[in-house]
Amino acid sequence: MKINGTHYRSVWPIGEDAFGIIDQTRLPHELATLTLRNAEAAAHAILTMQTRGAPLIGAVGAYGLALAVREDPSDDNLTKVHDMLAETRPTAINLRWALKRMRDALLNQPREARAALAWKEAAAIADEDVAMSQAIGRNGLKIIRELADKKAGQKKDKTVNILTHCNAGWLATVDYGTALAPIYLAHDDGIPLHVWVDETRPRNQGASLTAFELGSHGVDHTILADNAGGHFMQAGEVDMVIVGTDRVTANGDVANKIGTYLKALAAKDNDVPFYVALPSSTIDWTLDSGRNIPIEERSPDEVLKMAGRLPDGSVTVVEIAAPGSGAANPGFDVTPARLVTGFITERGTCAATPEGLRSLFPK
Amino acid sequence: MKINGTHYRSVWPIGEDAFGIIDQTRLPHELATLTLRNAEAAAHAILTMQTRGAPLIGAVGAYGLALAVREDPSDDNLTKVHDMLAETRPTAINLRWALKRMRDALLNQPREARAALAWKEAAAIADEDVAMSQAIGRNGLKIIRELADKKAGQKKDKTVNILTHCNAGWLATVDYGTALAPIYLAHDDGIPLHVWVDETRPRNQGASLTAFELGSHGVDHTILADNAGGHFMQAGEVDMVIVGTDRVTANGDVANKIGTYLKALAAKDNDVPFYVALPSSTIDWTLDSGRNIPIEERSPDEVLKMAGRLPDGSVTVVEIAAPGSGAANPGFDVTPARLVTGFITERGTCAATPEGLRSLFPK
Repeated sequence: MKINGTHYRSVWPIGEDAFGIIDQTRLPHELATLTLRNAEAAAHAILTMQTRGAPLIGAVGAYGLALAVREDPSDDNLTKVHDMLAETRPTAINLRWALKRMRDALLNQPREARAALAWKEAAAIADEDVAMSQAIGRNGLKIIRELADKKAGQKKDKTVNILTHCNAGWLATVDYGTALAPIYLAHDDGIPLHVWVDETRPRNQGASLTAFELGSHGVDHTILADNAGGHFMQAGEVDMVIVGTDRVTANGDVANKIGTYLKALAAKDNDVPFYVALPSSTIDWTLDSGRNIPIEERSPDEVLKMAGRLPDGSVTVVEIAAPGSGAANPGFDVTPARLVTGFITERGTCAATPEGLRSLFPK
Repeated sequence: MKINGTHYRSVWPIGEDAFGIIDQTRLPHELATLTLRNAEAAAHAILTMQTRGAPLIGAVGAYGLALAVREDPSDDNLTKVHDMLAETRPTAINLRWALKRMRDALLNQPREARAALAWKEAAAIADEDVAMSQAIGRNGLKIIRELADKKAGQKKDKTVNILTHCNAGWLATVDYGTALAPIYLAHDDGIPLHVWVDETRPRNQGASLTAFELGSHGVDHTILADNAGGHFMQAGEVDMVIVGTDRVTANGDVANKIGTYLKALAAKDNDVPFYVALPSSTIDWTLDSGRNIPIEERSPDEVLKMAGRLPDGSVTVVEIAAPGSGAANPGFDVTPARLVTGFITERGTCAATPEGLRSLFPK
């Protein structure tokens, strides 16, 4: 999407021997890009979260592997670099899927053809991710347009107010995003909308990445403390919620950034539609309940400390809690399917039920 | 309560011509006390939030007025300083109540007796506040003890896990607190307990004041991002919730720090008892629904910026959000009575219904 009028993707080829990414560790304080020239640099970018978001790191891994193949197209090197990149984020299903796809496309091909093939395959992975996000966007756009049409008939404010949690935007994918894709399409389509952005403690992906994305593209938005969403739903100032997800189980339960469950409860309590946007690769057909999803416990430092800009523009980390107090930091929670109005996928929308999911994905 | 083994109140007399407070704007980074020698200093401390919490500022106002009467016991001065102090926090019912009580006790008394009378009355206000907190504590202690007895019969961990939001501890009252009073009494009574402390964005009263209080008194606790409470309730790791309140309406609706409503929803969804601790002066018998409580909109800067300690121990403010993005900052939300298990008051506990409230407070 756009930053100050210029269109960006979150990963892009530079000739055929390098690729670029936005250094997301420096956002929102500074927009800095990185040029990655080999697989080691790609691995480092994933490890240090300079690049993040399940679909995006799949594409970054693919470009990293393509650069390695250019240097040494042997089967040995292909396997070695494949494994090295896969280990940078062991739980990321999408990264492993992308690396396997690259390897499968290259093994049994003539060595001299591999560099060009690899570059093409990485580009295809990136382009297909964009197409997937656009399809999710189009399907979600229908829901937003219905809300807008309904509000257009009312005398009061016609703006569609959408609340989102965490960052499921173009910075987490190659472009458009998942939860934010319908919002971008609706905005570009001229539908009057406003986004309530949960700051999303403790890592503040909302206040930093989502607000940066929306502001850069020109979408009207307001940051909220995570505590405030329920109040605005009670006040009738939220027309719908759209969030992304890390994993959906076969029964429709949704694992997503910590705090999603609380917003789903408030949406239910106030009859606000609560949608989850996802590419179908996020569905874990092997689990039949969200209770079986292991929840990652992250560092207490994310709760006890905070990074921010000083008046001189430099970025520093401050301690914000009582000295000596510890913190717990679960990264995700599970929203039961009963609280979810529907899923927005690349194939269409469906109910958050086993039957709903099967209606779109019969196999 | 205790700080490193020494007992503190949040306000205390120093001879008869000054009084002390803890400078709460410097917590949790530094424990600093202030000596206030006149009414103007008391007003400044309230205005700048060096002292805060409805019951506490009532006592601070009373001591401030007592110092003014010592300088000039005339009716004119009494009225002038009464009004000046009342204007420091126009919505604080408790402050106005304390100042009126002081004035009523002094008017029509001989001028030469007023200084001593005023000092005695201010001390009485403070002592009565402590007695009120202790009564709330004793009534809440019964509930915690029942939970502890129930858990003692179980094979698993016998610790009672209590979640609280914001700061309703001794730093908000003269001693003990409201929501934290039962916790302190249970701790001092040897009941094994652990407190989940919501950090309480955007002002972080939980991570700073509540964690400081509990840690200083030796109560086991863990700070959580506000987003995480629902997850721990789902996981069975919260046995009860206790929060304070700014105002309870006659039907049992509860206005409290923003985010309280979300925790009440999660408690209901997971069958976790949700209690609200309050002195009866907090009940607004003139309103029959929480929908009629005006919600204070605070500065966006509280969301967009954060104060914290640098490695050298100094405190600074950093900007944490995307530059150019705005924020909304409602200070309170309203938890409907249907989500509240019960009220813990100085007279006992009751259901969060008009009948429940009337059973304890017939008039």
